[in-house]
Amino acid sequence: MQNFPSLEEIKAAHQRIQPFIHRTPILSSEAINQIGGCEIFFKCENFQKVGAFKARGAANAVVKLTEEQRENGVATHSSGNHAAALARAASVAGIKSYIVMPSSAPEIKKKAVESYGGEIIECEPNLLARETTLNAVVEKTGATFIPPYDYFDVVEGQATCALEMWDEGISFDTIITPVGGGGLLGGTALATKYLSPNAKVIGAEPKGADDAYRSFHAKELIPMKAPNTIADGLLTSLGKLNFDIIINYVDDILTINDEEIIEAMRLIYERMKIVIEPSCAVPLAALLKNKEHFKGQKVGIILSGGNVDLGKLPF
Amino acid sequence: MQNFPSLEEIKAAHQRIQPFIHRTPILSSEAINQIGGCEIFFKCENFQKVGAFKARGAANAVVKLTEEQRENGVATHSSGNHAAALARAASVAGIKSYIVMPSSAPEIKKKAVESYGGEIIECEPNLLARETTLNAVVEKTGATFIPPYDYFDVVEGQATCALEMWDEGISFDTIITPVGGGGLLGGTALATKYLSPNAKVIGAEPKGADDAYRSFHAKELIPMKAPNTIADGLLTSLGKLNFDIIINYVDDILTINDEEIIEAMRLIYERMKIVIEPSCAVPLAALLKNKEHFKGQKVGIILSGGNVDLGKLPF
Repeated sequence: MQNFPSLEEIKAAHQRIQPFIHRTPILSSEAINQIGGCEIFFKCENFQKVGAFKARGAANAVVKLTEEQRENGVATHSSGNHAAALARAASVAGIKSYIVMPSSAPEIKKKAVESYGGEIIECEPNLLARETTLNAVVEKTGATFIPPYDYFDVVEGQATCALEMWDEGISFDTIITPVGGGGLLGGTALATKYLSPNAKVIGAEPKGADDAYRSFHAKELIPMKAPNTIADGLLTSLGKLNFDIIINYVDDILTINDEEIIEAMRLIYERMKIVIEPSCAVPLAALLKNKEHFKGQKVGIILSGGNVDLGKLPF
Repeated sequence: MQNFPSLEEIKAAHQRIQPFIHRTPILSSEAINQIGGCEIFFKCENFQKVGAFKARGAANAVVKLTEEQRENGVATHSSGNHAAALARAASVAGIKSYIVMPSSAPEIKKKAVESYGGEIIECEPNLLARETTLNAVVEKTGATFIPPYDYFDVVEGQATCALEMWDEGISFDTIITPVGGGGLLGGTALATKYLSPNAKVIGAEPKGADDAYRSFHAKELIPMKAPNTIADGLLTSLGKLNFDIIINYVDDILTINDEEIIEAMRLIYERMKIVIEPSCAVPLAALLKNKEHFKGQKVGIILSGGNVDLGKLPF
């Protein structure tokens, strides 16, 4: 598989990040199985450290640093879960982290980064300012830039989530993950195709941020302009490295509108009694919209995170 | 212990209700442990069948019916979790259930009862109407009345929750449960005093419905008039049988105001990523208010249920 992370590398990553992560449980709901007409296994990364699967990739990237790199710490730009994940991984590893965040980032996200000991550098809320500020930070500090998703060490880490799923002994017919930058979907596709080549891997994407869907079908990377969806974790465009994995090893991308995402989100809260962020509900929404494709199957769904503003739930 | 359910009876109840219940997980949060200054183990009955520990007592009462009683089914009056729990237990056991509900009961509660095949009989929203209507139903149908809490078969069932907790091999110093009618607290006290006599059992109660607190200290049953609290599962007055258990085997009752309940509820949503009803947050709120009493202890907390109107979260 080209120069993508190998199964051995993913397994090594899983060993490497043990001190940094939980092994999250897989939960099921009879009621949701009945509604879906299939057997659904939810991998609960909302219970993961920092409340998201991002803990995996960030930890893997941090542990793989050389001794020299460790001395100068790590840096990234992110307003979301990767920011907290990298700050925490750095803190556990005993190194410095510099997090460039847009001035518009929610207070709760900034507080999370601070609580993990990350140093926040604020910038104007646009991509150019983020990149310029990050470059300045890296130049000044010598920190290693750990990108949020388009980076093989990160993908290798995200792949450990599917590794754990397959290790449960469940013979999934299909695994569905949300797709934003593509790190989780890419990692899941790699682990799955190594371990169970006949199982299908599907990405689920909001209609309002459907660049992965369009890129997948056009067979070329089409960046997202002006994304608009409640699934705030999936606003980013698909990364280039991840696109290469996805085009080779993902079976399909399904899109779904916000109304259907909210309905699936509510179903998970009401029936499973767990807190998830809107992005997590995208795979279940896609499944329920396309029930006939999954009839009688064993379907794995990765619930990617649980960091949601409880005062702004859409119901 | 007088004529209270014995350890053997509680163990037999646990065996008896296996086909009706989940063995719910115990979860912890490092962040909440740090805030509380002790090690807290949350027994997640919000993940229980029908979303509450009430599934246990109702199932036990149903399975213990004689063949003759089974023919005429069961009846109760309840607008809450016991209604759904009894309807479901009856449905699984293949018998009829008649549920008297006040006309003011939320649609979602009525739908839950209907979805389990319970027959709803509506009445005026006051206790007299509930009792009169129930008596009429029992007279007409010959159904067996299964009270929501003040009934030894129900208490025996609720006690199986603590039985599972002690079976995990954790040496709890204290177990805290919410207290409303007292079935859960009574059952927990019995199981705990049989299995680990030195462990403390504490009830946690909203200040706005503090009849258990007042009854405990006056050493006589003082019914609650005009309760007023966000913890809608704890509005009922302590039952007589449960008072007898509690006065003998419970170590303390702590009270807490609604503001503190909401704060603890939010903490559980944000840090543990699980959905609970307000009543569940009362024990954690009581612990956080009295940290010095629990310092360094291993504390078990029963999260009693997860049936909450998501559109009306208090944050």
